[in-house]
Amino acid sequence: VSSGDEKQLMGQEADGSQAEPASRSVGADVSLEDLVSLCKRRGFIYQGSEIYGGLAGTWDYGPLGSQLKRNIINEWLKFFVDGWDDMYQIDAAILMNKKVWEASGHASGFNDPMVECNNCHARLRQDHIENNKCPVCGKENEFSEPRQFNMMFKTNVGPVEDENSVSYLRPETAQGMFTNYKNVIDNFYPDLPFGLAQVGKAFRNEISPRDFVFRAREFEQMEVEYFVEPNKWEDSFEHWRKDVHAFLEKLGIDKEKVHELEVPDEDRAHYSKRTIDFEFDFPHGKAELLGLAYRTNFDLTNIQNATGKSMEYRPKDGSTPFVPHVIEPSFGVERLLMAVLTSAYSVDEQNGEQRTYLKLPLNMAPVKVAVFPLLKNKPELTEKAKEVYKMLKEEFNFVMWDDNGNIGKRYRRQDEIGTPYTVTIDFQSLEDNTVTVRSRDTTEQQRVEVQNLSGSIRS
Amino acid sequence: VSSGDEKQLMGQEADGSQAEPASRSVGADVSLEDLVSLCKRRGFIYQGSEIYGGLAGTWDYGPLGSQLKRNIINEWLKFFVDGWDDMYQIDAAILMNKKVWEASGHASGFNDPMVECNNCHARLRQDHIENNKCPVCGKENEFSEPRQFNMMFKTNVGPVEDENSVSYLRPETAQGMFTNYKNVIDNFYPDLPFGLAQVGKAFRNEISPRDFVFRAREFEQMEVEYFVEPNKWEDSFEHWRKDVHAFLEKLGIDKEKVHELEVPDEDRAHYSKRTIDFEFDFPHGKAELLGLAYRTNFDLTNIQNATGKSMEYRPKDGSTPFVPHVIEPSFGVERLLMAVLTSAYSVDEQNGEQRTYLKLPLNMAPVKVAVFPLLKNKPELTEKAKEVYKMLKEEFNFVMWDDNGNIGKRYRRQDEIGTPYTVTIDFQSLEDNTVTVRSRDTTEQQRVEVQNLSGSIRS
Repeated sequence: VSSGDEKQLMGQEADGSQAEPASRSVGADVSLEDLVSLCKRRGFIYQGSEIYGGLAGTWDYGPLGSQLKRNIINEWLKFFVDGWDDMYQIDAAILMNKKVWEASGHASGFNDPMVECNNCHARLRQDHIENNKCPVCGKENEFSEPRQFNMMFKTNVGPVEDENSVSYLRPETAQGMFTNYKNVIDNFYPDLPFGLAQVGKAFRNEISPRDFVFRAREFEQMEVEYFVEPNKWEDSFEHWRKDVHAFLEKLGIDKEKVHELEVPDEDRAHYSKRTIDFEFDFPHGKAELLGLAYRTNFDLTNIQNATGKSMEYRPKDGSTPFVPHVIEPSFGVERLLMAVLTSAYSVDEQNGEQRTYLKLPLNMAPVKVAVFPLLKNKPELTEKAKEVYKMLKEEFNFVMWDDNGNIGKRYRRQDEIGTPYTVTIDFQSLEDNTVTVRSRDTTEQQRVEVQNLSGSIRS
Repeated sequence: VSSGDEKQLMGQEADGSQAEPASRSVGADVSLEDLVSLCKRRGFIYQGSEIYGGLAGTWDYGPLGSQLKRNIINEWLKFFVDGWDDMYQIDAAILMNKKVWEASGHASGFNDPMVECNNCHARLRQDHIENNKCPVCGKENEFSEPRQFNMMFKTNVGPVEDENSVSYLRPETAQGMFTNYKNVIDNFYPDLPFGLAQVGKAFRNEISPRDFVFRAREFEQMEVEYFVEPNKWEDSFEHWRKDVHAFLEKLGIDKEKVHELEVPDEDRAHYSKRTIDFEFDFPHGKAELLGLAYRTNFDLTNIQNATGKSMEYRPKDGSTPFVPHVIEPSFGVERLLMAVLTSAYSVDEQNGEQRTYLKLPLNMAPVKVAVFPLLKNKPELTEKAKEVYKMLKEEFNFVMWDDNGNIGKRYRRQDEIGTPYTVTIDFQSLEDNTVTVRSRDTTEQQRVEVQNLSGSIRS
């Protein structure tokens, strides 16, 4: 969990310094409205339960959004799990014993009455507001009624609905790694440093979900708990810092829009000795994209105290056992997805007309190639196009068939979903077995022989 | 959702014919205890929240279990999404507007007092029990206290905790497809037939979760809603029936243990015109592995009635619009995983000693190759082994390094996790650049030159 969110979640944003106002102006190139509209219109992201009037803070991913999420998650797994020799992936349950959240501080951190600033939506502990003035935006007398508010979703597990059966939807995936740390040590005898990684849903009952998928009530995290020797944390931290940048580059995220924020002492969670928030210039303003935190041995020590079981690591050379320290890089799939789309969103002019397109790198593009028969009511064109479609699908897998509307309309559609290449089969194709290949970024068209098509697209 | 579970979920198992007793005796080769023990001991599956005493009905997947799940899900996506031209993947939220469950019947289906048979654990509507005798196992007077029981986990979304903010964790992924059917039609203009596919978590507050991960409170589904013209459902159904078998074979699931059960009229949900339960000989008995159901236009019509919005499909040839019918194949990741492990579990004798190994096909094996230095305290062996490890990792990705314990112990470990090949670096390796390759299934060992190693393993 990133530091800003963590502090808010733990009810610690007393000074308000980490709370994010609804929007800030930056030099963002695409407005939030345009992004939301493209996502809805083109089948990336729909409002959750939309047909029933929606459910605030939830989002459904359409075919292209699902594929983009799958691409991001796969790159992450490749980069941080498969790419490291000392990484163990786990997949813990969303429903956990409530003692997990008592020990971690998530359950008890919410016992104070909270208010929300109606102006900037910062959520604040009532007893920390002086002079009735919001410490975030400075507005006076703009607070909601105070309320006991726990950001964890509560439910009951088992047939009896009482205090004993209370459970929560996890507000972070991180505790799944800490609670399984001992299992992995016992089964795999890893050397230090080693990491536990997890991808999965997490839930927070945000008072005001906002800014599209940026702050939702249900979201997907990709987190690592990287266990290190206490005196070696700085090297690991630095290694992770560099790798985070390298990973963001792999996703095509604009590095000019990524900013490191060294979280100052007074703003960090008390147990963290160093935290970097990686911020991004989102359409709604500069805001936290992901976090990298050095959490000392805070979490494992909490578990040790709560369970009475030793969380010590026994070095294989027989030296003194100790509780390892932890570096935690914490990614949110949806925020990365927003950053990928924001970075890719492009507008240019073609023959005096404005064109919108997503300049996605090949590994992110939900569709790699689209195939068009020039006209849909000419069986000979359609048949030839199907042949080409099948051939390409075997090689590129994510190939889209499109015969709806005129060619110009189809190009616009593929541009807007970021398809790098479109292949059109026309009457000349029937004569000389060539097709037109159009590049998304240049809009240039080239005639290519069908037998050279795959190679030409690859290069 | 498969028919048996569906009926139970909907409180319809009045006649008890679909409820499953706790265990049945069949010719299973591995006991449930042995399977659970292997999974725990080798890092496949742990009890959820184990270190805090557990949370009944939840399971955490360790490094090998996570990888096996990932392998199963990836095969499913490859087979049923990427492999079909008319399939659209979506990813809907777990938290949905409660109207979804009112319209689907899941919310209202639970208004009757339920009892559970203490002998066979069948859950029954109290008013359907005659003569105080369990219609499933025949025991008398063995019922729990009657209870209003909704199998959906309830929570509240938003800051106010009242009836209006009630929401449920989805008990099936299927409704996410039905609620997004119109969005996909509007964005992608698909021809019929076309399918919506989804992989994701679902939750059911089982009174007695049991039989390892078979009946858990949190589980992962892979479902398709395949929309067809009403008069063409039979062809599609048959196509799916065959594809289900082909898919199970890809996972290495023993086809001798798979049985089709044509669910008779009186046992099917009222809206279904045909359902096949694919049963499997699990260690705990023959039980439902997955379901294939023809659901008519029941779900879309429910949504149409509840929202007043048309769910009709408009054929492109201008013929009369209609509400499509649906074929629903419904897979559970955990049940497939259990079937994969059960099919792979093997015991043989080697030199008079019993050996347990998992005969997993290559695409399922969490680890493809393991690399051992013969001795861990000889730097020259370790160095050479690291070289080989790196070379193999580039090609096979999931390669495990193991230098813990003697070679025999390491072989047993790799056999039990189903690693097809193990490569040992010994003193001879330092002299002639050859290594020993051992095959899991035959335990035969061959000396292979390092430069031929990848090719030799591939073949």
